[in-house]
Amino acid sequence: MTVGIVGLGLIGGSMAIDLRRRGFASRLLGVESEPVNAAAAEKIGLVDSVVPFRECVGQSDIVVLAVPVGAAVKMLPEVLDMFSCMERTGETESRCRKTVMDVCSTKEALVKAVHYHPQRGRYVATHPMAGTEYSGPWAAMPGLFDGRACIICDGHESDPDAVRTVESLYDTLNMRHIYMNASSHDVHAAYVSHISHITSFALALTVLDKEKNEKHIFDLASGGFSSTVRLAKSNADMWVPIFSQNRDNVLQVLDTYIEQVKRFRNAIADDDEASVRSLIEDANRIKRIIR
Amino acid sequence: MTVGIVGLGLIGGSMAIDLRRRGFASRLLGVESEPVNAAAAEKIGLVDSVVPFRECVGQSDIVVLAVPVGAAVKMLPEVLDMFSCMERTGETESRCRKTVMDVCSTKEALVKAVHYHPQRGRYVATHPMAGTEYSGPWAAMPGLFDGRACIICDGHESDPDAVRTVESLYDTLNMRHIYMNASSHDVHAAYVSHISHITSFALALTVLDKEKNEKHIFDLASGGFSSTVRLAKSNADMWVPIFSQNRDNVLQVLDTYIEQVKRFRNAIADDDEASVRSLIEDANRIKRIIR
Repeated sequence: MTVGIVGLGLIGGSMAIDLRRRGFASRLLGVESEPVNAAAAEKIGLVDSVVPFRECVGQSDIVVLAVPVGAAVKMLPEVLDMFSCMERTGETESRCRKTVMDVCSTKEALVKAVHYHPQRGRYVATHPMAGTEYSGPWAAMPGLFDGRACIICDGHESDPDAVRTVESLYDTLNMRHIYMNASSHDVHAAYVSHISHITSFALALTVLDKEKNEKHIFDLASGGFSSTVRLAKSNADMWVPIFSQNRDNVLQVLDTYIEQVKRFRNAIADDDEASVRSLIEDANRIKRIIR
Repeated sequence: MTVGIVGLGLIGGSMAIDLRRRGFASRLLGVESEPVNAAAAEKIGLVDSVVPFRECVGQSDIVVLAVPVGAAVKMLPEVLDMFSCMERTGETESRCRKTVMDVCSTKEALVKAVHYHPQRGRYVATHPMAGTEYSGPWAAMPGLFDGRACIICDGHESDPDAVRTVESLYDTLNMRHIYMNASSHDVHAAYVSHISHITSFALALTVLDKEKNEKHIFDLASGGFSSTVRLAKSNADMWVPIFSQNRDNVLQVLDTYIEQVKRFRNAIADDDEASVRSLIEDANRIKRIIR
């Protein structure tokens, strides 16, 4: 099968590596607007060739949109328009059998953008829960998705064969499938992914503002600090549109989070060791879930 | 040399492992008030034997206080009192050559507690910047300290030979030495260690309170979330006294942190993408420091 990957960054690039070496993709086309990244992706051999967007959509059996969600919201209707056009001009079978999926971190804006599109069935909304704090084709790595969960949203809106194609792609990546509607996805993602990026960014800002002597940060930072602040290296191009598209959920979670930090603050300020202990022991319940 | 370790948890136990296998300790004595942990420490073979506190102090050339800082503040003067007593009764040389060090995460309360003690010179205040979110003798591991920094506080208050003994112990653990006064240590530790524990605890509480369905957290949590929330597994016995003893510094950092989270919140609420981008890019400067 020919797989077209739009956006050859960490996620798109890592998919390309595993889809090829595990035999899912017989041919890999890539689209990459950043010339340096495009050259790197070809040089590293992530894809067979980097081609223009229309050519990629035209030649691929499945198109993966692996760009920031702001760009994906614009591209997705264009892809479905091209599918309609190919059907009309007979470039493909009478009912287009091509599939397009995205891998973005928010889903509601995407599914809304094409809700009434005549080719809606050819789109599968997905979110593979994997990543690192690095970006670009250099960050791509084999095995990134192994054992993680991928979420398929509003699957009933997609044609069954399109869903099967996408499931088979994720099977190749060794991912567990989870089915959810797009709006639930966005609420859960705010809690277990988006918020932790904000807490890391804010932690980095706090430390950078106060510790003018960077050598001290470097010397004193224990593994715990590095782990907590790791996500603060994450890329603005990716995260600005996520916070923007998942604004209401993110704000609600942030308000709860600020309240929790204040509960700690006040218990410490009041020298109330019993309350500090009880907050910590409550938080320790996370052990049951995160290993 | 006989090394006595008071508190056979993660730090004390991990020190025991490396001090023995790298030949620093010819004999290892341990003190452990929790019977289950004491039995485990002997069974695992962390120490040659678990003995009462007084016996450990009496028989060891160097005593390492590896207990929560609240307990260490009480024990430290007792150890120095025992040193005085041994000197008087001639159990040791005319000027006691024994050394006591602690490995606690806050330093000011400890150095204050013994500032005027006649045996103050035999005490070296230290903080090895290493750890994991696990605790107890089972959590002890070889190599925990390799390559990390250890801080030696107010070294001018300690006898030069006591400092040399402690430096040599940390050399055995492959740690870099950093010298600092106790009050600077506590300010820096609030920024690069204590605060990140509170942000993790608060994150865990936020998610646990809202995500009643724990399966969702488990399924959706990406590596980023796990990394950010990891410290929320940390033990209350250790952290309650740290926050309490470093109260003023921790409160100051927490207030700055809350302000930073609010800047994010307000930029997102105002749909001000330029400000969100600028906050993220500012936070990205942490890349220069944390690899």
